[in-house]
Amino acid sequence: MEKRDQVSEYETLTWSTFGWAARQLAQAVADDGFRPDLVLTVARGGLLPAGAVGYALDVKDIRLINVEFYTGIQQRRDRPVLLPPVPPADELAGAKVLVVDDVADTGATLDLVRDFCAEQVAEARCAVLYEKPHSTVKCEYVWSRTDRWIRFPWSGQPPVVVR
Amino acid sequence: MEKRDQVSEYETLTWSTFGWAARQLAQAVADDGFRPDLVLTVARGGLLPAGAVGYALDVKDIRLINVEFYTGIQQRRDRPVLLPPVPPADELAGAKVLVVDDVADTGATLDLVRDFCAEQVAEARCAVLYEKPHSTVKCEYVWSRTDRWIRFPWSGQPPVVVR
Repeated sequence: MEKRDQVSEYETLTWSTFGWAARQLAQAVADDGFRPDLVLTVARGGLLPAGAVGYALDVKDIRLINVEFYTGIQQRRDRPVLLPPVPPADELAGAKVLVVDDVADTGATLDLVRDFCAEQVAEARCAVLYEKPHSTVKCEYVWSRTDRWIRFPWSGQPPVVVR
Repeated sequence: MEKRDQVSEYETLTWSTFGWAARQLAQAVADDGFRPDLVLTVARGGLLPAGAVGYALDVKDIRLINVEFYTGIQQRRDRPVLLPPVPPADELAGAKVLVVDDVADTGATLDLVRDFCAEQVAEARCAVLYEKPHSTVKCEYVWSRTDRWIRFPWSGQPPVVVR
């Protein structure tokens, strides 16, 4: 296995590059002729890309789904789970949905969301800023591919500390 | 009335300043001793600040509410309306909620969300990047006050055009 220096372990996304990336991602969706009825935001990581892509595509109907690898009691699960509130089946029925997340890493989260959508919507396509090579989901729209750890601008710093 | 030159009509928020602003907003919430159970995102404008503030406060439970001044048939209403899916009453019961939006302009949107919360939650406080002087809602947490038109980084450009 190739020895890496410390610099190459990380991919750092800045705020301004994020803005440009989200715009390019939206452009790829538009150029592909996909006109989603709604954007399904995968929280939390998808909130910022979904917002930026939603504006860039002029999609006003934004929905949210919470997916976590952790249970309420802080035990890690083998697989991610949908956390309540899960969108009711009839809410998304028949819609063309653009699922937006920050990264397809293992792919398990987006696999779960795709399965959820498959039972309900007319069509679901996935858009992510990054996709890792080992992801089990192959997203229709990907801004960049990397196998490095990604520092997103919203999660690159630890939470604030009370002063 | 004071005559303004064109430059002063706009306040332009860049992506990098937005990142810094969201962090400062979260710091103000933390310093105030408010520990929200969940972040209620006011879509669409609140998506990006809610995501960034949620990460900065380490709040994992993110909810979404859609508010629009327009009906489905593109008629403007006098007042904003909650669009479906409206979070069911029992979902937010007893929670301490941080409502996050981009701007309190007239205040009508946040007034509506506050009224909605008042019937359901233990406590709701509002955090916005900007508050206008004429806003009917006085938010607990405000990053900046201005009476100018604000160009947010996600809505400063028109939607993408198919190439």
